[in-house]
Amino acid sequence: MEFDLIHRHFKSPFAALVKANRDSVLTGIGDDCAALAPMPGHGLYVSTDTLVEGVHFFSDDPAPAVGWKSLACNLSDLAACGAQPIGFTLNLSLPLIDESWVAGFSAGLLEIASTFNCPLVGGDTTSAGANTAKTISITVFGEAPLQHHGFHRALAKAGDDVWVSGTPGLARLGLLLEYQRLGSLSRFYSSSEILSVLELLSVMPQSLKQLAVAALRQPFPRVNLGQSLRGKANACVDLSDGLSGDLAHITTASGLSAVLAVHALQSVWLKRWPELSQLPGSVTFLDTLLNITLQGGDDFELCFTAEPTHLDAIQSINTALCRIGQLEAGEGLWLSQPNHSRQRVLGVSYKHFAEPTL
Amino acid sequence: MEFDLIHRHFKSPFAALVKANRDSVLTGIGDDCAALAPMPGHGLYVSTDTLVEGVHFFSDDPAPAVGWKSLACNLSDLAACGAQPIGFTLNLSLPLIDESWVAGFSAGLLEIASTFNCPLVGGDTTSAGANTAKTISITVFGEAPLQHHGFHRALAKAGDDVWVSGTPGLARLGLLLEYQRLGSLSRFYSSSEILSVLELLSVMPQSLKQLAVAALRQPFPRVNLGQSLRGKANACVDLSDGLSGDLAHITTASGLSAVLAVHALQSVWLKRWPELSQLPGSVTFLDTLLNITLQGGDDFELCFTAEPTHLDAIQSINTALCRIGQLEAGEGLWLSQPNHSRQRVLGVSYKHFAEPTL
Repeated sequence: MEFDLIHRHFKSPFAALVKANRDSVLTGIGDDCAALAPMPGHGLYVSTDTLVEGVHFFSDDPAPAVGWKSLACNLSDLAACGAQPIGFTLNLSLPLIDESWVAGFSAGLLEIASTFNCPLVGGDTTSAGANTAKTISITVFGEAPLQHHGFHRALAKAGDDVWVSGTPGLARLGLLLEYQRLGSLSRFYSSSEILSVLELLSVMPQSLKQLAVAALRQPFPRVNLGQSLRGKANACVDLSDGLSGDLAHITTASGLSAVLAVHALQSVWLKRWPELSQLPGSVTFLDTLLNITLQGGDDFELCFTAEPTHLDAIQSINTALCRIGQLEAGEGLWLSQPNHSRQRVLGVSYKHFAEPTL
Repeated sequence: MEFDLIHRHFKSPFAALVKANRDSVLTGIGDDCAALAPMPGHGLYVSTDTLVEGVHFFSDDPAPAVGWKSLACNLSDLAACGAQPIGFTLNLSLPLIDESWVAGFSAGLLEIASTFNCPLVGGDTTSAGANTAKTISITVFGEAPLQHHGFHRALAKAGDDVWVSGTPGLARLGLLLEYQRLGSLSRFYSSSEILSVLELLSVMPQSLKQLAVAALRQPFPRVNLGQSLRGKANACVDLSDGLSGDLAHITTASGLSAVLAVHALQSVWLKRWPELSQLPGSVTFLDTLLNITLQGGDDFELCFTAEPTHLDAIQSINTALCRIGQLEAGEGLWLSQPNHSRQRVLGVSYKHFAEPTL
């Protein structure tokens, strides 16, 4: 049963992708180990993430979206190190063998694996018994030249610009829309905060709502961007826990402070959705968005620091990258207003342990 | 909370082991990815296994034993491919943060990781909410020279001797003793079989009982043996699912049949415990042991095939290796009696899906 299931939904659908990578995958699924041949002169990068039903995804999320996201959050870690994906392993622990769910999960996984040319090379599938939560662990492997420094968090320098890709906070907006749909927003926000959030959600353009839910369900890891930043960025993280929390990993490890411009953070949204500044109550909405931008996790965008001399080179990679602030001597995360007044941002990262389950 | 827990029980206790391997571990726990530097001219071997509480270990198993076994079963896969461990990642999903359990688990993990010089390089810890089962996934990395063929299952040849290390079935005997202790042997055996098992357990020497439970709880992966077999063995598997099932992986992949000598299989036990042949009813006992030897999983011994010309070289590696049969043209698994009569062994491998939970 186990062998059949693995063959039908994993070995067979992924066979073409493994074959297309036969130079790097010496042995795939089916032996005691997979065997890979990393490129000579390259370091091996490894990252692993676990997704638990009810904690990291909703039970009624479409199975292909769960498959996509399981690999996406791991590829995002490779992206944050500037590594090229070469393969991954999958541990799937299921309460029962729900074959239609497995088929959907596998289809989503194959879609993202094919998009990033990252073959499935091994895994373990377990039936954990009724009443358990679906648990998915993926470990992904990548490579980068040994001379690349991997964008370690401690490599940021005072004077570096701070950059972000995409729209940090967009996935959190998607999560809030999902909570609203399920009637459980009040478990997430205090009564003093919830009104402004509800107002924001009620006036938000429909196109933005759809993109927010898509950002939550099917994040697009910035794998190509990460590799393009080799030789340009100093430190880089992916925004899995939220901008303020993840940027703090860099400032803490590098012994620096970050000063982010409120105007720049708002422009991340306004550049894509200029109509947000025209809505009634837009000042309040932009404040609410600012908090979502700082706190929101699960974006899987990149936040990186680079010396100002690289500005043109970075903008030529991708015009949608936004420079949101600078690093300075000192510690902590600060917001600066257009009038140059500063306000310290305190403890607002996304913590899976601290948060209510979905 | 999550960061503190990881630091206290994983990053800090494993720091010395990571440092001792600084040539191969460029970046350990704490960045988006770990970075490893495999030796030039070597292939990278990867294996992953999941252990679920109540399926793969008992809820009341000592936490250090669970930590040991979680890595042992992965190292055993590297052993079966003849690879040298270089590091591993850990995914730990817990119902609640039971810190004393985590501390014990980490201690057992560190003990085996130190024994095999295999540093923890990354991971993910998740609180999955009350009423969930502890779920542990480990992915282990190893290396072997590119010219080593990895003992693929399809590489066995007709005429090869079949060898095993240790005492296959010993861990199954340990599992039966645990079931007996919990009063649940009847969930595992039919009423027609249970009497002979109970009789065997009742007369078994105490020293054998203790070793059987130890084999179940703290199996010793044959990592050094696996590497010593490079250039000698053709195909190799580890006995995670049981001798008959795992050997079938080799015979099926290689398009051959295996003929095992009943006398040789029994001598695997009698060489270590000669008193088993002196017990009242020893003929029945030896038959029961034979079934346990063929069916028993979780042994993490190696079963390998090698051309007869390598006999002396293999015996000089380790005198406790037993030659139990040969491969022939044909298909299936056969037992041969001293009088050369043969009997086919049908479908008796250990399947996690098919088995009752503990």
